[in-house]
Amino acid sequence: MIKGVFFDIDDTLYDSTKLATMARRNSIQAMIDAGLDVEEEVLYSRLNEIIREFGSNYPGHYDELLKAFDIKWSPRIIAAGVVAYERTKAGYLRPFPGVVPALLKLRENHRLGVISNGLAVKQWEKLIGLGIHHFFYIVATSEEVGYSKPQKEIFEYSMKELNLNPEECAMVGDRLDTDILGGNRAGMTTVRIRTCRRTDKPKSREETPDFEVDGISDLPLVLEEV
Amino acid sequence: MIKGVFFDIDDTLYDSTKLATMARRNSIQAMIDAGLDVEEEVLYSRLNEIIREFGSNYPGHYDELLKAFDIKWSPRIIAAGVVAYERTKAGYLRPFPGVVPALLKLRENHRLGVISNGLAVKQWEKLIGLGIHHFFYIVATSEEVGYSKPQKEIFEYSMKELNLNPEECAMVGDRLDTDILGGNRAGMTTVRIRTCRRTDKPKSREETPDFEVDGISDLPLVLEEV
Repeated sequence: MIKGVFFDIDDTLYDSTKLATMARRNSIQAMIDAGLDVEEEVLYSRLNEIIREFGSNYPGHYDELLKAFDIKWSPRIIAAGVVAYERTKAGYLRPFPGVVPALLKLRENHRLGVISNGLAVKQWEKLIGLGIHHFFYIVATSEEVGYSKPQKEIFEYSMKELNLNPEECAMVGDRLDTDILGGNRAGMTTVRIRTCRRTDKPKSREETPDFEVDGISDLPLVLEEV
Repeated sequence: MIKGVFFDIDDTLYDSTKLATMARRNSIQAMIDAGLDVEEEVLYSRLNEIIREFGSNYPGHYDELLKAFDIKWSPRIIAAGVVAYERTKAGYLRPFPGVVPALLKLRENHRLGVISNGLAVKQWEKLIGLGIHHFFYIVATSEEVGYSKPQKEIFEYSMKELNLNPEECAMVGDRLDTDILGGNRAGMTTVRIRTCRRTDKPKSREETPDFEVDGISDLPLVLEEV
């Protein structure tokens, strides 16, 4: 019987891909409005390259963007991008439909946790912004634990915190290469959240989830089967 | 005749003291809600000390706050503070009543500028957040110019950008020791915005404004007199 359920955050509890897309789009448009004279599509794809290259937590994406087009550093343009990004983020940081009632339902019979790769404060900011931080008994971030999904240590650490065995735990996430692979390696039941964006197929038996669902709303029913 | 009018930002165009007070209060309350077990007033006054000591642009205020009470670093508590601060800021970042119509009126006969001490991107973020960034021909920040109010160089730089002489310019701000002192030294007409908070009296002739007004709404009338 499943007693503990662990969740990934990004693209599992909320639509982080949509948030990032809209926030980047709006930041580019605001920078153009502030005087950046480059075509929107060109800026957008270059910004995405910069974020891939420097990582999403690097603080100087817009500085790099100006450099990439040989444009003099402009606090006006950079600030326009920052403000538009933050405002858009505030608008899009909300749980997927159905997530809150499903978590409330699951809490009746399970202890819930989060297992997330990323900076601890940033990941907590997301949970707090989503208004669901009080739902979880444990939030394990790779920064704090010192291991990242799919390394099984971060899963083992999380189970130990709840004093549960792998047979009693489920891992829920959208990614085969981190959430599902790591959950399987740690011996948990694994549930993949299908999204329209992530349609990749398992490349091995280890990456194959025990269950696939279209949304977290389907989770209580699926977990009853185990 | 006055042709150019320069403005300070903080506590002149918007209520930055109120914003900071409310945002700090709310961040402390959110940290307590997230598990910080110290009395609110004690935390609040210690946070203010830390901000004075490390400066308002230092990124680790909440980390220092936990250290000050020998509390283990907690991303949960820090993130709660950050989210509450940002949300409160978004709510309080709005021009003082009357500022926008007064700026529109002044623009009919004057070129407007900003002279501000601080980091360029941060100060631009405020103007953009306030929705008034398009009103100004020039925004001079101490970071970019290399001089800070009350140094007269930042005032001279700003007048040169508008191609105006000191007799043709006015400086508007709330602080005697920066806005008024510097504006006077640069030979401008100086106008102090009186606020309920800043009731200090000029300590010298150089710190004495040519005019005092209760709000920017009174400015068009005052400048006609010059």
